[in-house]
Amino acid sequence: MTEFWHDTPRLETRMREVESILIDAIQDPGYPLAQETGELILSGGKMLRPALVMIGSGFDKRKRRPAREDQRIAHVAAAIEILHTATLIHDDILDEADFRRGIPALHTKHGVANAILAGDWLFSRSFRLVADYADTKSARILSRLVGSVCSAEIRQDLGKFSYRSSKRDYLRTIAGKTAALFSLSLHVGASEAKVDPFTTQQLRRIGYDIGMAFQIIDDILDYESDGQTLKKPVGNDLKEGLCTLPLILALQKNEAGIRPMLAPGRPLSDPEISSIIAQVSASGAVEEARTLARRYTDRALSAMASLPACEARRELDALIRKLILRKY
Amino acid sequence: MTEFWHDTPRLETRMREVESILIDAIQDPGYPLAQETGELILSGGKMLRPALVMIGSGFDKRKRRPAREDQRIAHVAAAIEILHTATLIHDDILDEADFRRGIPALHTKHGVANAILAGDWLFSRSFRLVADYADTKSARILSRLVGSVCSAEIRQDLGKFSYRSSKRDYLRTIAGKTAALFSLSLHVGASEAKVDPFTTQQLRRIGYDIGMAFQIIDDILDYESDGQTLKKPVGNDLKEGLCTLPLILALQKNEAGIRPMLAPGRPLSDPEISSIIAQVSASGAVEEARTLARRYTDRALSAMASLPACEARRELDALIRKLILRKY
Repeated sequence: MTEFWHDTPRLETRMREVESILIDAIQDPGYPLAQETGELILSGGKMLRPALVMIGSGFDKRKRRPAREDQRIAHVAAAIEILHTATLIHDDILDEADFRRGIPALHTKHGVANAILAGDWLFSRSFRLVADYADTKSARILSRLVGSVCSAEIRQDLGKFSYRSSKRDYLRTIAGKTAALFSLSLHVGASEAKVDPFTTQQLRRIGYDIGMAFQIIDDILDYESDGQTLKKPVGNDLKEGLCTLPLILALQKNEAGIRPMLAPGRPLSDPEISSIIAQVSASGAVEEARTLARRYTDRALSAMASLPACEARRELDALIRKLILRKY
Repeated sequence: MTEFWHDTPRLETRMREVESILIDAIQDPGYPLAQETGELILSGGKMLRPALVMIGSGFDKRKRRPAREDQRIAHVAAAIEILHTATLIHDDILDEADFRRGIPALHTKHGVANAILAGDWLFSRSFRLVADYADTKSARILSRLVGSVCSAEIRQDLGKFSYRSSKRDYLRTIAGKTAALFSLSLHVGASEAKVDPFTTQQLRRIGYDIGMAFQIIDDILDYESDGQTLKKPVGNDLKEGLCTLPLILALQKNEAGIRPMLAPGRPLSDPEISSIIAQVSASGAVEEARTLARRYTDRALSAMASLPACEARRELDALIRKLILRKY
């Protein structure tokens, strides 16, 4: 899982530490599904969020950081990955998704009941790491985040199959469900390493912009993916009744052509989905969505210029290039 | 909701503070189901767990506690009630329960997806209060607790409809899902108020025993309730495929008579349930279960003799009498 980071060796080393903390953290002889739930965590995610924590912590100006502090920060990074996985497990139940990271979703294998508990168990593992290793400030920020993710998810869930989301609704939702955690990861890393307030604030903004760009591109790929790149089939969001940016923009351009295909409250058939995807592509909406993602990315890159030149900045730059720029 | 405490006026006053903190804590303009989820919290539970926190905190020897510390402890008590409600909401999904505290369960009204998120949102609200108000030690204990509750629930869930639980399995499950939180509530209250270690330790044990007795009696009532006392119908556990203490003990006494009615993996019909309840009653298992509950209660009462005589001890005594002794 750490191969993604091979071109930034310092980060790669730190990510191996996070990985081994994760392996330890999910041991629990008392919990019958610990093994299976743990596999999901270790099953090939890029561990973006912990990477952002580690990068954020790299902006401190000290020549050497005590090993104990390094360890502490790696534990907080692991807590964030566990928290993220908990939300994914509950998310997959909500979305009735069959697969996650190429393996069967937990609820398809063990039923909804056990998947709910698996997510709860991970929440508890995550908060346990936070309580044991994070400083009070980070603990406060993290506990608030879960609320923001839930609010965003529930708003998204309530709007399903209505196809009435505005661009503003959409941006608010992805801010809550994706950008908030990216932002928080950089912020918490910096704050735990006592990075100066200006840099910490900049990192928080950059994290937000990276998260927004990342989610917009993810949603674009659902209109373009060949079913391999993302390990998920194209048209998945439409299948779930979600109205993401490409569709929102396409409706603005060609409401008359597309709206009649969207019957509120009814799932779309496969031929309907193909036809909507074709219309969305024809409308130029995908390019427009890409332009918006690019705007977030450019803002992140230009804010980076104000950060001190250091290894962490190079790592952040590499991350943006691999994660986002490559996808345009 | 505070009427239950009218015979212990000091506690009643403190519980009103907790109640008003709860009302504040569940405000969230960004969360679409805040109102409905909040109603569940305020819908007539006795708030036993926060009461235990307040009682535990009453064992400090100081004449007067600073008002700020009182407020802090009341917030931690509120956090525990919110945490408990979060687990109830997820529990009701697992058990496919239609009602909770006499009102429709959240998942029957808003669907499983929104109920999962409502529970998650409450977890986040609870951890937010903990991060803001609890000391690090309490935060650690609380984060561990959620894991223990999940493990117990999942063990119970995996054993459903097998009717093969032993008395040992049963005691382990109720220790994790009920007694742990009772124990922790007294413990956290005492620890937050800096009560001496011996008393704190005694309170932890007493909380455990009260919790065990409480759950055993709750499970007995499911074989006896008239459908009014607990706002839940009799035979509910059997309907859910659960094998609780009365059935376990009855099987020990009359395996040949009862086992043939329990087809593994298949839900029981209403006539089957009535017939099993009759057999369980005839076997004397209910009295035996009651004796065990009484043993836990007696141990709690005798441990109380070693606690300093004070208002809090009188409150704890009153709680045990109202909650448990009255039910024998």
